[in-house]
Amino acid sequence: MDKILRIDLGAPGGPKAAVEPVGEYAGLGGRGLTSFIVAKEVDPLCHPLSAANKLVIAPGLLTGSSASTSGRLSVGCKSPLTGGIKESNAGGQAAQALARLGYLAVILEGRPAGDDLWKILIDKGGVRFEKANGLRMLGNYDAVAALRKEHGDKVAYMTIGQAGEMRLGAASIACTDRELRPTRHCGRGGVGAVMGSKQVKAIVIDEAGTTLRGPKDPVKFKAAVKVFNEGLQKHAVTGQGLPAFGTNVLTNVLNEAGAYPTFNFQQGRFDGAAKISGEAQAELEVKRGGLATHACHRGCIIQCSGIFNDAEGNYVTKQPEYETVWSHGGNCGIDDLDVIAQLDRMDDDIGLDTIEMGVTIGVAMEAGVIPFGDKAGALRLLGEVGQGTPLGRILGSGAGITGKVFGVERVPVVKNQALPAYDPRGVQGIGVTYATTPQGADHTAGYAIATNILKVGGFVDPLQTEGQVELSRNLQIATAAVDSTGMCLFIAFAVLDQPETFQALVDLLNSFYGLSLTGDDVAALGKKILSAERDFNARAGFTAADDRLPRFFEQEPLAPHHVTFNVKPQELDQVFNWQ
Amino acid sequence: MDKILRIDLGAPGGPKAAVEPVGEYAGLGGRGLTSFIVAKEVDPLCHPLSAANKLVIAPGLLTGSSASTSGRLSVGCKSPLTGGIKESNAGGQAAQALARLGYLAVILEGRPAGDDLWKILIDKGGVRFEKANGLRMLGNYDAVAALRKEHGDKVAYMTIGQAGEMRLGAASIACTDRELRPTRHCGRGGVGAVMGSKQVKAIVIDEAGTTLRGPKDPVKFKAAVKVFNEGLQKHAVTGQGLPAFGTNVLTNVLNEAGAYPTFNFQQGRFDGAAKISGEAQAELEVKRGGLATHACHRGCIIQCSGIFNDAEGNYVTKQPEYETVWSHGGNCGIDDLDVIAQLDRMDDDIGLDTIEMGVTIGVAMEAGVIPFGDKAGALRLLGEVGQGTPLGRILGSGAGITGKVFGVERVPVVKNQALPAYDPRGVQGIGVTYATTPQGADHTAGYAIATNILKVGGFVDPLQTEGQVELSRNLQIATAAVDSTGMCLFIAFAVLDQPETFQALVDLLNSFYGLSLTGDDVAALGKKILSAERDFNARAGFTAADDRLPRFFEQEPLAPHHVTFNVKPQELDQVFNWQ
Repeated sequence: MDKILRIDLGAPGGPKAAVEPVGEYAGLGGRGLTSFIVAKEVDPLCHPLSAANKLVIAPGLLTGSSASTSGRLSVGCKSPLTGGIKESNAGGQAAQALARLGYLAVILEGRPAGDDLWKILIDKGGVRFEKANGLRMLGNYDAVAALRKEHGDKVAYMTIGQAGEMRLGAASIACTDRELRPTRHCGRGGVGAVMGSKQVKAIVIDEAGTTLRGPKDPVKFKAAVKVFNEGLQKHAVTGQGLPAFGTNVLTNVLNEAGAYPTFNFQQGRFDGAAKISGEAQAELEVKRGGLATHACHRGCIIQCSGIFNDAEGNYVTKQPEYETVWSHGGNCGIDDLDVIAQLDRMDDDIGLDTIEMGVTIGVAMEAGVIPFGDKAGALRLLGEVGQGTPLGRILGSGAGITGKVFGVERVPVVKNQALPAYDPRGVQGIGVTYATTPQGADHTAGYAIATNILKVGGFVDPLQTEGQVELSRNLQIATAAVDSTGMCLFIAFAVLDQPETFQALVDLLNSFYGLSLTGDDVAALGKKILSAERDFNARAGFTAADDRLPRFFEQEPLAPHHVTFNVKPQELDQVFNWQ
Repeated sequence: MDKILRIDLGAPGGPKAAVEPVGEYAGLGGRGLTSFIVAKEVDPLCHPLSAANKLVIAPGLLTGSSASTSGRLSVGCKSPLTGGIKESNAGGQAAQALARLGYLAVILEGRPAGDDLWKILIDKGGVRFEKANGLRMLGNYDAVAALRKEHGDKVAYMTIGQAGEMRLGAASIACTDRELRPTRHCGRGGVGAVMGSKQVKAIVIDEAGTTLRGPKDPVKFKAAVKVFNEGLQKHAVTGQGLPAFGTNVLTNVLNEAGAYPTFNFQQGRFDGAAKISGEAQAELEVKRGGLATHACHRGCIIQCSGIFNDAEGNYVTKQPEYETVWSHGGNCGIDDLDVIAQLDRMDDDIGLDTIEMGVTIGVAMEAGVIPFGDKAGALRLLGEVGQGTPLGRILGSGAGITGKVFGVERVPVVKNQALPAYDPRGVQGIGVTYATTPQGADHTAGYAIATNILKVGGFVDPLQTEGQVELSRNLQIATAAVDSTGMCLFIAFAVLDQPETFQALVDLLNSFYGLSLTGDDVAALGKKILSAERDFNARAGFTAADDRLPRFFEQEPLAPHHVTFNVKPQELDQVFNWQ
């Protein structure tokens, strides 16, 4: 895995591919690689939908190896949603296939001259381009079904739905899972719109004829894998909670904590929470012949996903994540798992970020477009996005634009990206992450819930301001590094709590690459990535004023704790204190 | 004129007014006053539609006196469109009435608790508040008609239409003209949305019982008025071109120069230009019993406006300005003055900025919503804004949001505000102003057309980069000062070319206030205003990256001259070189 595949969609005579050595990007993977390429090669002031933007697709440093849970994919670009740098991360099968083919990254640049849609076929023999106009305006499910007829079931598909083709700010890129379903999305920041702007409907990745990537020191690597896997399995979150109930185990936890954003962040507790909790969801899944435990990609031993069937036992969607259940559920006053599953299915099909869409519908509810709790209305609104009606296009452009178009003041976005499922007033640490991460509001960028709520990696009182900046800083640094390995972020629970699991992660990298990294080196990598991302954003015009929550979080106390977000601006400006 | 009227819409028990002395704002008027109040009193990070924003309404330093052409009104706030500071300027009768009542400024702050719409009645006896729910969702024409039944014809009305009530980014505030028609708009930057967010439908200003404001030195003042008036009358632009043909005299001039943005800034010349020129317009107006020469407010001796009737001789609208004829006309490929007049009427009625709306419809045409040149389509789209349909709300939110919602790359905005009627590739000096003014793309902020095209105040070659930064700088400084006097910006043609007319302007101020200002003092005032505006924007998060044109102006050559915008970023950063 030592080469970069660079594809010029705008080459005279049609798309052209070229393979180049890693060069200056050596030692980077995943988010580290996408962010460094975007920071170096993309004009920060370009229009995100212009030929000057690039879409960078990168597996992680350990992806394609036998290290468990290492199959995450990073997609980077200048974001059409935030206007800043973006790394959006997904599971599924694409990352491992790319890694086994030896590609450290695929860079899509330029833009075709005509109106044709394209598919890109990548296999051991090289790269081919075919027109894909027959897939135009198909949802991801239909597009993958059509592709499977031609390319079979032994490949990984990356596709965009109608939202990506329409170049909407909430558009995602779907990666197929082990069952060839388009359920694993690079959701955040409108990366699907950038793929759409390059007129690429699908990327077909065929790993036939490849093998697992081999480590430099197989013996040490095998030993590290063993310790690492044991670490994941013995930790309560990764070994029990996530496998049993998925991420939705958090609904009851956050609701109990009074930090569950309800009715578009108007209150911190939802009466219907128990009905849509992970516990209720798992029971329903099992009862209907679905699965409460399921891996989104080969080799994951956490298996936090599941399969959600309808009352007749027919597949609807993969187990909706906590964020999705919250955004379409409690945030909109909807306490019906079947409706939420249908909305999740539609998001996956149209190709939309579930967080952005749930928050957007919440803003539309606040504007009076439909009432809170209106299940049929929510389904209808989401359907309009797929149809590309004017209202659908507003909503598909995200919460920020929806708020402006409907004149709403309470719009929970940072850098124009919707806030996830934790109210920053009830969990002040995650508020620091939302405000300051270069990615726009994103819980995964520095998951302070771990320490504020789950008491992983210590405990910092969620309602106090003390210690939150340091907590978010350390988590953001660690996360940037983890996002470079291809490891799922959920390994962090075990890594934060168990020194030997952290060491096993470092040992995995060292034995795979023949390095002698220390924990400090890992932190240095994380800082380097964050600095590059912040530098891009600064050149794109971002300042400290963009590292702030919307004012209402400081002004409107949140029930039940009647607390506002109290971390001071000058404290927020200390998150990246090494710069 | 030594007091400020401060109105708290959110006071317990209903809106309250208080009169306070000028205090620290002494010596300021018009834009200088609105910008200093906003910069000092408004949280730069507040939501523009929140209670924390303020709407500041200020006549100029000479408004209400016998100085001619001095009846302009400044309205300032944090802009919902740009997110930065905003001063939006209009003619009409309101400014003189406020000035004669002795109000240097009216500040609207807070927000009512309930849903009621309000009207504010200001007369010599004080201030009263009445609910105005009966005017809800009326257009400006109907609203004024209803108000006239109650308050008569001897008052000035400021109203918002449906767009302001919907809090749309392109919403204007209408001021009635001498005929009590709501045709004079503070158009730019969404000031109408801020008035709407404060739930104020109308401000009724009754100057009964007041007199002209008297100067400190009546003899010198009278002498200065005489020289000043002679200066306006003897200059070719203010004495002949503008009175005879209005601002639309520019259509043929800019088209000839190859800088007339056509088909959403795709080319610099429009085949149908002659049909919609000021010459054709004036001829049509006179033929139909309208007027080709008309003053928008008492005491204007330039009289650049007119009255546009339909083929049956019935009033349609005031003479559409050059910017309007361009935005709805050539920019959209429409060469029909009757259609343009109808669109102008609709903008005035719904309460929309004509520049923003024409550019927005051009972007929608580029997106394929309707074809270029589709007259019926343009009328239909604008109608949807008034109806508040989803498509209408998109369009009413301005060109930037429309471009995002429809995934368009060629979106001519700076700081999210639409570019006016001069292509910056064909007139490089105006490009410098568009890029750098704190107001967002705005020709009136530093009207380089004067020197680049009309050879007023010297000549700087419009297609070269040399001298453009200095030109724009000097014009922006002078404009900020002129905008503080209440003088119409059009006096600048005479002031720039005729030293004795400039001196007469200074003499007007000195004799009125008993001062001894020099030309340097006037420039210092302009710089002080610009510095305050830029400081507000910096605190709101603006950087040099916001002082740039969209990239396509640097990349796509404009026919017929095949020129791109070539003023370098580092040169743009020298516009405000005193800071």
